Amino acid sequence: MTDPSPSSVFERITLCGLGLIGSSLARAIQASGAVGELIGTDHSETVCARADELGICSHVVPSLAEAVQDSDLVILCVPVGAMGELAQAMAPHLRDGVIISDVGSVKDHVTEAVRQHLPDTAHLIPAHPIAGTEHSGPDAGFAELFENRWCILTPDADTPADAVAKLRLLWERCGAKVDEMTPAHHDLVLAVTSHVPHLIAYTMVGVADDMERVTENEVINYSAAGFRDFTRIAASDPTMWRDVFLTNRKATLEILGRFTEELFALQRAIRTDDGEALHQYFTRTRAIRRGILDAGQDVDVPDFGRRAAKPPSD
Amino acid sequence: MTDPSPSSVFERITLCGLGLIGSSLARAIQASGAVGELIGTDHSETVCARADELGICSHVVPSLAEAVQDSDLVILCVPVGAMGELAQAMAPHLRDGVIISDVGSVKDHVTEAVRQHLPDTAHLIPAHPIAGTEHSGPDAGFAELFENRWCILTPDADTPADAVAKLRLLWERCGAKVDEMTPAHHDLVLAVTSHVPHLIAYTMVGVADDMERVTENEVINYSAAGFRDFTRIAASDPTMWRDVFLTNRKATLEILGRFTEELFALQRAIRTDDGEALHQYFTRTRAIRRGILDAGQDVDVPDFGRRAAKPPSD
Repeated sequence: MTDPSPSSVFERITLCGLGLIGSSLARAIQASGAVGELIGTDHSETVCARADELGICSHVVPSLAEAVQDSDLVILCVPVGAMGELAQAMAPHLRDGVIISDVGSVKDHVTEAVRQHLPDTAHLIPAHPIAGTEHSGPDAGFAELFENRWCILTPDADTPADAVAKLRLLWERCGAKVDEMTPAHHDLVLAVTSHVPHLIAYTMVGVADDMERVTENEVINYSAAGFRDFTRIAASDPTMWRDVFLTNRKATLEILGRFTEELFALQRAIRTDDGEALHQYFTRTRAIRRGILDAGQDVDVPDFGRRAAKPPSD
Repeated sequence: MTDPSPSSVFERITLCGLGLIGSSLARAIQASGAVGELIGTDHSETVCARADELGICSHVVPSLAEAVQDSDLVILCVPVGAMGELAQAMAPHLRDGVIISDVGSVKDHVTEAVRQHLPDTAHLIPAHPIAGTEHSGPDAGFAELFENRWCILTPDADTPADAVAKLRLLWERCGAKVDEMTPAHHDLVLAVTSHVPHLIAYTMVGVADDMERVTENEVINYSAAGFRDFTRIAASDPTMWRDVFLTNRKATLEILGRFTEELFALQRAIRTDDGEALHQYFTRTRAIRRGILDAGQDVDVPDFGRRAAKPPSD
């Protein structure tokens, strides 16, 4: 086994799943020097081969049992619906005292699905880095994905404090800011800030695709800022998002209920020509945008930075 | 009067309203060399003074009557709800044969509101450049705003073809691609690609602002891609958007009805655990995104180009 350098946080980390998040995390961990040896594995042989070519891990090990057996941290980077099965498959091969974490967008359901399979000696610390793009696969990842983004940990009261501190430090070394909350509160917050917005974007793009009196060319050519941003959101991985909605059903349905209530109120204002109500509503929402810019969670440039950005050459 | 250069399309153009679109158009027209003399005016003295400082027009003329009286093209760059009143105020001062155009996001209602005030000798050619950012005011404009974006003209059958051709050429000289359609069809297309997406984004940001169990700090810090993009859309000018919804009421309400119908179907799929239906829906919407990229109406870079973009220095 490689000797950890003095600044290592873990001796040996295994990332299970090398898609957008897993491969970004691999790059970020390697760049941070926070690990002695980084093992990557994936159920897809193609992904394993590609990750090996990219050289983003110390070793890519296709066998799950071999990949996890000597690690002091194992992070599950797979769609939320696949976490339970993956935990069950790796459980017999885990070393005593291992820390198990994940990067799933839902925490309550996933925590239960994973915990039931783990040995008593393992410490489960669910995590969710709030970062991503609409792209998928090992080539889509980049080391800076987590820089200045938040990572939420949802440990329970029984988790040893030093295990939580080590995982927190790893994420900080990858550039993230770290917060802790309960799984249920996480799921409510994310339903508001991510899950329902994604469902709405998918729906609006679906409506456009369905219109008989508006051609697909018209939708594509005249996609103004609003719709163009929706299509970017709605291009995200279908499997990941199916799992998010099915496993965060309660909070999603609650927030959807609030959303349709407000939408109907605005619809009524349009129908009854109540310009004052519309103007007040639209003015209020500007303040939240200012807060996001002040918190450094986005940049504020003309045309959303697209003038500065160059399309990929391929 | 300045002699037009050989490549001028118009001798003298007046832009009424020097906000984001008006001031961008001023910069684009000046850069194109398509006009002899460019006059800017605005009902706000502050905006006139700032536009004068910025030097984006040949002359800034605060008096509307003086600003329009010798121009062969006058473009109304004000919120949709202000177009009728502006047309009425300028009508007595227009020169014979003048072309009147606008940049409003709604065409059917605006066309009627403007046409009723114009003298018979004026040629009305409504226009809508599909371009913008969430910023407002003369400082927010930039000459490249219309580059490779579409501008839709909605002339009626009686408009002289040479007048339409000149306006088309002006927009092409500003970098835009030009299409023509009826006002009513324009309003339906834009309800799908812009108006309803904006209303939805405003609504979702309003819901987040209203939640008692989720703090504003949580909303701001954990604003993932979905919500973060919504806040950008929902930061757009409240007056402009109030006017859009009130004047494009019919198409907005029709598309909203379609939207809620589809949203309820997805909500039902979540409630009944129908993962297959969700996955199929989310897969279909990816194709539209690909079409928009292929049409050059957006760029496809990791993190939406934000890594490459730098916040403004002020």
